[in-house]
Amino acid sequence: MLATVIHAARDIRVETVPDPVITTGDDAIVKVVAACVCGSDLWPYRGVTPTHEPHRIGHEFIGVVEAVGEAVTAVQVGDFVIAPFYVCDNTCANCRNGVSTSCLNGGWWGGDDRNGAFADGGQGERVRVPLADGTLAVVPGPVRDEQIPGLLTLSDVMGTGHHAAVSAGVGPGDTVAVVGDGAVGLCAVIAAKRLGAATIIAMSRHPERQALARRFGASHVVAERGPEGIERVRELTGGIGADRVLECVGTKESMDQAIRSARPGGMVGYVGVPNGGPELPVRQLFNTNVGVNGGVAPVRGYIEELLPDVLSGAIEPGLVFDLELPLAEAAEAYAAMDERRAIKVLLRP
Amino acid sequence: MLATVIHAARDIRVETVPDPVITTGDDAIVKVVAACVCGSDLWPYRGVTPTHEPHRIGHEFIGVVEAVGEAVTAVQVGDFVIAPFYVCDNTCANCRNGVSTSCLNGGWWGGDDRNGAFADGGQGERVRVPLADGTLAVVPGPVRDEQIPGLLTLSDVMGTGHHAAVSAGVGPGDTVAVVGDGAVGLCAVIAAKRLGAATIIAMSRHPERQALARRFGASHVVAERGPEGIERVRELTGGIGADRVLECVGTKESMDQAIRSARPGGMVGYVGVPNGGPELPVRQLFNTNVGVNGGVAPVRGYIEELLPDVLSGAIEPGLVFDLELPLAEAAEAYAAMDERRAIKVLLRP
Repeated sequence: MLATVIHAARDIRVETVPDPVITTGDDAIVKVVAACVCGSDLWPYRGVTPTHEPHRIGHEFIGVVEAVGEAVTAVQVGDFVIAPFYVCDNTCANCRNGVSTSCLNGGWWGGDDRNGAFADGGQGERVRVPLADGTLAVVPGPVRDEQIPGLLTLSDVMGTGHHAAVSAGVGPGDTVAVVGDGAVGLCAVIAAKRLGAATIIAMSRHPERQALARRFGASHVVAERGPEGIERVRELTGGIGADRVLECVGTKESMDQAIRSARPGGMVGYVGVPNGGPELPVRQLFNTNVGVNGGVAPVRGYIEELLPDVLSGAIEPGLVFDLELPLAEAAEAYAAMDERRAIKVLLRP
Repeated sequence: MLATVIHAARDIRVETVPDPVITTGDDAIVKVVAACVCGSDLWPYRGVTPTHEPHRIGHEFIGVVEAVGEAVTAVQVGDFVIAPFYVCDNTCANCRNGVSTSCLNGGWWGGDDRNGAFADGGQGERVRVPLADGTLAVVPGPVRDEQIPGLLTLSDVMGTGHHAAVSAGVGPGDTVAVVGDGAVGLCAVIAAKRLGAATIIAMSRHPERQALARRFGASHVVAERGPEGIERVRELTGGIGADRVLECVGTKESMDQAIRSARPGGMVGYVGVPNGGPELPVRQLFNTNVGVNGGVAPVRGYIEELLPDVLSGAIEPGLVFDLELPLAEAAEAYAAMDERRAIKVLLRP
């Protein structure tokens, strides 16, 4: 079958690889209906994280179950399923605590074996899914083609934006600022609106992303960054800053922007993968009682909550996909996102 | 009148200073009944923070109102009052948000004028209290002498321990670890118990403090620190770490201990004044979804909630005072706390 393999920075190839096979009774084989490129895939693409040897890549996919191991009971052949961007049993202590990204038996897609990750990635024709009962969420009923993009966001970006909002404690009437206008930031706007925020300030300099943020529920757009951006947020929040700030980038600058945009006693919910490990300024946090909460989003646990709103069209996270390509053109998908020609690219095997 | 003045590191003197006078209509003059030395007072005492010129020191006191300005309505002459360790109007946007330590019109006791702080400190015979309506909390009814220590803790340490627990989100059934066995850490044990924690692990190496922690509600005591301490906490919490960790010290080591003692998805509530500004390891926090929340405790807003339990004896935070001295011996009070001969020293003018 065909699957995407990264060989080195900026060297993405779609190659013939062995078909996946059931190797434990807990496995399922999923025929991929749609996959996509994640902002975090751009790190190895750009060489920010090194690629030691060629390996499969990709971690967001939806599809149809083709085969299941003998111990699998929660999913059946023919089920339409959503895979989160990681593997989890959904039963261990950490999963029960809502932190399935820290599953005691789970792991990650697409790494090389030295990382202890599962060898399959999501950007391919099929994927072997370990711990299928825990990992996969079944979509009830027939799936219409126009629902595909929205369902695919539940494998990562919509759940991740939701995690930013949940981590920040967004609730009815809150003022919320969102730092980052990528797919996750835009989904964080959806999540804040869905959780009842009264004022949502999207920080974005790109007209088309600003427009999408407004469609998703942003009441204000702030194009400025740095001190000017902080000042604009203050002006929009009674002079004190936002109750909740959703950090969806992961750089030192974006985290600083987020922390300084929060009001005293406010909370920053962050989901941007820390790029190079910016440390948090504890004295600044201490003096202002601004909290920081979040991390790698346990999206598996959010699928059941968000799925009805995606199926009904009450929320439209699928609109973050502004380019669709066949799997064979995965290299162009990476380039388009790297050059910011696309917010997020959907791949069809 | 007499009041404590710090001249330089390890140079604490009780001197005659001018009696305070009402200078604005919002002021009150409070005759101090009891004051105390705070762990954070030891910073200038030890020279960790420089003392540029002699100034008043102290910020925890209770007493009786002797005079009020013409605009004061909430407190009357003769009222027994608790002053928090800062001044606040209790009406601004930040105070209404529960963050009175960030009061838009407030300030701090005992600094020199260059810091914009109010010149009075709490370790004296009388204090001019600005913004008296917002700052002071009235204790109803007659106060018995044995209630004095408990009431005094509401000016700082009991409210600060409570803030650690509130910031960490302690609730019924939680497992809680408390890092720090000073007065604040011990009060954090009280707060965790009061909020319904099922398992409370006090980290302490001092037998008398361990005993007090147990009296306050600790179910377990861990004497180990570093990796051994973390391992002991894990053993007591099903192998994953504590739901909530209360950091009550403020060093890099204690914050690290706290973060690594929390389970994935857990929350660290921190109130230890950051000593030298330890930065927080964002990558570690991100990977484990451990949040960090807290800061300088807005104790003014907690007094009304905690006061009934102090007056009834339901909680006994006054036991953290293990030494009582006359104000004239303030220098010895500092020395006793510096040398850890005392947990916390109560001063009587």
